[in-house]
Amino acid sequence: MNLINSLEWRYACKKMNGQAVPQQKIDTILEAIRLAPTSMGVQPFTILVIQDPEIRKKIFPIAFNQTQITDCSHLAVFAIWSSVTQAHLDAYIDQIATVRKTSKELLKGFQDMLTGSLLHQTAEQQQKWASKQAYLALGVGITAAAAEAVDATPMEGFNPAALDQLLNLEEKGLKSVCMLALGYRDSANDWLEKLAKVRRTKEKLFIHF
Amino acid sequence: MNLINSLEWRYACKKMNGQAVPQQKIDTILEAIRLAPTSMGVQPFTILVIQDPEIRKKIFPIAFNQTQITDCSHLAVFAIWSSVTQAHLDAYIDQIATVRKTSKELLKGFQDMLTGSLLHQTAEQQQKWASKQAYLALGVGITAAAAEAVDATPMEGFNPAALDQLLNLEEKGLKSVCMLALGYRDSANDWLEKLAKVRRTKEKLFIHF
Repeated sequence: MNLINSLEWRYACKKMNGQAVPQQKIDTILEAIRLAPTSMGVQPFTILVIQDPEIRKKIFPIAFNQTQITDCSHLAVFAIWSSVTQAHLDAYIDQIATVRKTSKELLKGFQDMLTGSLLHQTAEQQQKWASKQAYLALGVGITAAAAEAVDATPMEGFNPAALDQLLNLEEKGLKSVCMLALGYRDSANDWLEKLAKVRRTKEKLFIHF
Repeated sequence: MNLINSLEWRYACKKMNGQAVPQQKIDTILEAIRLAPTSMGVQPFTILVIQDPEIRKKIFPIAFNQTQITDCSHLAVFAIWSSVTQAHLDAYIDQIATVRKTSKELLKGFQDMLTGSLLHQTAEQQQKWASKQAYLALGVGITAAAAEAVDATPMEGFNPAALDQLLNLEEKGLKSVCMLALGYRDSANDWLEKLAKVRRTKEKLFIHF
């Protein structure tokens, strides 16, 4: 199946069947998310991967009783950094120096650019920026899941404050922005699976110059 | 090459060689973007696909003289709706009714939910929501480009107001949020291609429960 067929096959599954996704497939999807590009390479988020059924049972009412929470195999919570700190950027520069075997001296220009463009923003601006990067990685993850024939439902319908409290995200310096339920469709009971996909036509979505 | 290998192969190409990407590959990448899921299926954006070298020459200074603008094959500008209108939502409901051969009567509940959740937001809230959806689609497009062995450089470094003016986006009810340059790497002259990819380790990026 090519990637377009996979993207046509996928949909935002509304009823999952509880079957476990093999670890190797989960690893592939997470690796794709990890490899997603982000603004200046910062990756300003953490992803909480929740298999524990007890925790998912507690998330269920926070996500308005949507059954994918409890019937999925793995629930990935995308949580952005609530603010970008000097420590975040220092760790990033340290990692570049290590991976590329270069001196921090040579990275000074890049470090100044990072600091200048990010640390002077308000927390709200930083969060807006970080959310976009998290959604880009979400898009990569959704595509990778489709390629692995794993159902993936992106979910924005939940109470972020309640979820942050349940998962102690505030003390981790994180804020949840979206979730991705990974599992398998329950074809007999999913009303959406049978319905044709609705997308704007290419004539409406694209303008060519 | 599997998808992970493709994502490892890709990088934010800094120097492209001007070679044209075959139309079939461009079509595949755009189709992937079109199939990307978005919040409630609304797809609150338009994508301008610019081949015209004269227009790209004008964008070059607006994007701080980054040469991918002129050396890429196709430049995709992701532009969100500057506000979500009743007309947008009506067109969407009409399309669902047509594609799924259902009555608008039956879609009333969904229509009310759409209207209630989107039309009462401020333009700024709508734009924040729309930007996240555009970045999700950007992530799908980047992944599809990698699978097609097409280089794709996501670009946020440009003056959005100047770009909007050049492309008359305000009168189209649009605002540019990011660009994706599609083309081929100039391996002899791209300083970044030789450098190892830097990504946070999976131990740091993911927390498992």
